[in-house]
Amino acid sequence: MNRVYNFSAGPSMLPVEVLEKAKADMLCYKNSGQSVMEMSHRSKDYEPIIQEAEALLREIMQIPDNYKVMFIQGGASTQFAMIPMNLKKSGKADYVITGMWAKKAAQEASKFLEVNKVASSEDKTFNYIPTLDKSTFNPNADYFHITTNNTIYGTRFAEIPDVGNVPLIADMSSNILSEVYDVSQFGLIYAGAQKNMGPAGVTIAIMREDLIGDAIEGTPTMLQYKTHAENDSMYNTPPTYTIYVCKLVFEWIKNLGGVAAIQKMNEEKAGILYDYLDRSKMFSATVEGASRSLMNIPFVTGNEDLDKAFVKEAQAAGFINLKGHRSVGGMRASIYNAMPKEGVVALVEFMKKFEADN
Amino acid sequence: MNRVYNFSAGPSMLPVEVLEKAKADMLCYKNSGQSVMEMSHRSKDYEPIIQEAEALLREIMQIPDNYKVMFIQGGASTQFAMIPMNLKKSGKADYVITGMWAKKAAQEASKFLEVNKVASSEDKTFNYIPTLDKSTFNPNADYFHITTNNTIYGTRFAEIPDVGNVPLIADMSSNILSEVYDVSQFGLIYAGAQKNMGPAGVTIAIMREDLIGDAIEGTPTMLQYKTHAENDSMYNTPPTYTIYVCKLVFEWIKNLGGVAAIQKMNEEKAGILYDYLDRSKMFSATVEGASRSLMNIPFVTGNEDLDKAFVKEAQAAGFINLKGHRSVGGMRASIYNAMPKEGVVALVEFMKKFEADN
Repeated sequence: MNRVYNFSAGPSMLPVEVLEKAKADMLCYKNSGQSVMEMSHRSKDYEPIIQEAEALLREIMQIPDNYKVMFIQGGASTQFAMIPMNLKKSGKADYVITGMWAKKAAQEASKFLEVNKVASSEDKTFNYIPTLDKSTFNPNADYFHITTNNTIYGTRFAEIPDVGNVPLIADMSSNILSEVYDVSQFGLIYAGAQKNMGPAGVTIAIMREDLIGDAIEGTPTMLQYKTHAENDSMYNTPPTYTIYVCKLVFEWIKNLGGVAAIQKMNEEKAGILYDYLDRSKMFSATVEGASRSLMNIPFVTGNEDLDKAFVKEAQAAGFINLKGHRSVGGMRASIYNAMPKEGVVALVEFMKKFEADN
Repeated sequence: MNRVYNFSAGPSMLPVEVLEKAKADMLCYKNSGQSVMEMSHRSKDYEPIIQEAEALLREIMQIPDNYKVMFIQGGASTQFAMIPMNLKKSGKADYVITGMWAKKAAQEASKFLEVNKVASSEDKTFNYIPTLDKSTFNPNADYFHITTNNTIYGTRFAEIPDVGNVPLIADMSSNILSEVYDVSQFGLIYAGAQKNMGPAGVTIAIMREDLIGDAIEGTPTMLQYKTHAENDSMYNTPPTYTIYVCKLVFEWIKNLGGVAAIQKMNEEKAGILYDYLDRSKMFSATVEGASRSLMNIPFVTGNEDLDKAFVKEAQAAGFINLKGHRSVGGMRASIYNAMPKEGVVALVEFMKKFEADN
């Protein structure tokens, strides 16, 4: 078995320890005589699994008691609709447009309410986080939406904006659990699992309880946060196995020392790659300074043929999914929590050799 | 490792062969160097998996070419809203109320259009399939909705109603792939995976292409069939691993001889249990004659204390999740495709012994 270093933007690597546990449990979890996949979600075998998943997430993110944790299906794309459908009151919301996903979130919201785009970095292919001017914020907005980390462009909010009493909503799909956030700054945090939490197929929503109210008329039952909150994510059958793997990932994070410890490792890993990119005469990062993501690092050679040759040779050497998103071009290394430091070091060694050879 | 016989209504048993394959592939699928969980959904490693899952399902269900197969999240409960939101034209739809799920489907639909309940068996705790009177059908309905198998009550439509040119929509969550259906009789078939197809977290929708049109205003992008159909279930990240396990189940069915072969096995398995229930002086089935399900078989002793004692002793002997739904009481044995004949034979032996002892 030759494992590769997988730099995919998501789904992406999972910790080997997690996969090994999942493997060992596959035909029989503990003494249950069943796979976790086979368990009734309402059984005494399964209930402790989802409860422990929630408890671990609460512990490692230090989620305050007045927040509900929900396991929902449909990905962040479904959240893009749930947010306006559930939070619309005055009918206006603020969005910061820092990438394709932020744009999609705003587009979907504009079906339901008036979207005020307080800032955008689209002028430069989203390669920076715009400075926010508070005078453009609507103090009566129903909410203020940001994307903390932008997967495609490799940018990240180094500072969480102060939006006063307006509920701050964050799409953390690509950097949840990668660095310490103060949950109490947010009204709602949501994230698809498939980058830093587990397999694709579950979305975590962490919502301040007072915001969980009545949705607008015509909101499907399954798209009401209330439905999930009141039924502890068990209104219907949740994605039971996916949640179990998330639980294993949360355990792995806890055992490594928690999110603060992971953040240090992520800073070190990203530092190794950025340092090389800043010194290289062939490769350069597409994002500068404080906007740089710890999770997704796009880079280019400036020569499309060379980019292609690099991606191809890297793949053959076991560094896969390095091709950049078509809107940015070049390469992108996604180095989520589960990418070991050795993977980044090995990639940099490979890049140095490629630079020397070409 | 002592595997139990799991009679859960769902999620429930998976074929051991499927679990063993999933286990063997856990850290490295074929030569990919990755778990299927870790694969980018847009990679050349993963794409053949979802494509093969679809091709296998088309083959074993003999799905005509003018039907789209979609992998959607959110369970049947999300379909309950998607159906009216996407199919509303005249604003009227017919529903047959054969159980709690049929009722929930109709309730959700009534948020969006006028529901005509053409028949109901609620008068007798849904323990039969009502005879349908065509004069109660609306010939101009946008669609006609049935639940082919009713998980809680253990009933099943022995005959699919002829609804003329009105699109027939079937919730097959609890009996898809258990018996042969002629897909061309239906406008839309949908089913959550967690009973006969795989782990919880994906819903299959098989829809006649001409029905995939514009949804009503205010329908979230993710709740439009068009979104999933036009993007081959890849508008956003699908539940990749769950789909992979479904693929393994479809392969298992194909290797056993297809759905017709499975149907024979299911008829034999159900026959063994019904035969005993009809002869027993202690246990009796709650459903009579043609309405009987092949998948879910509720039964009672007529004495609540005895029911409890039976469930408890059965559990200790490795027959788990036999407690009936609270609305029916007593016991329920769900014997989906993956329940081996030996499991049913062993259960009947256990019941005989319990009857002799009590």
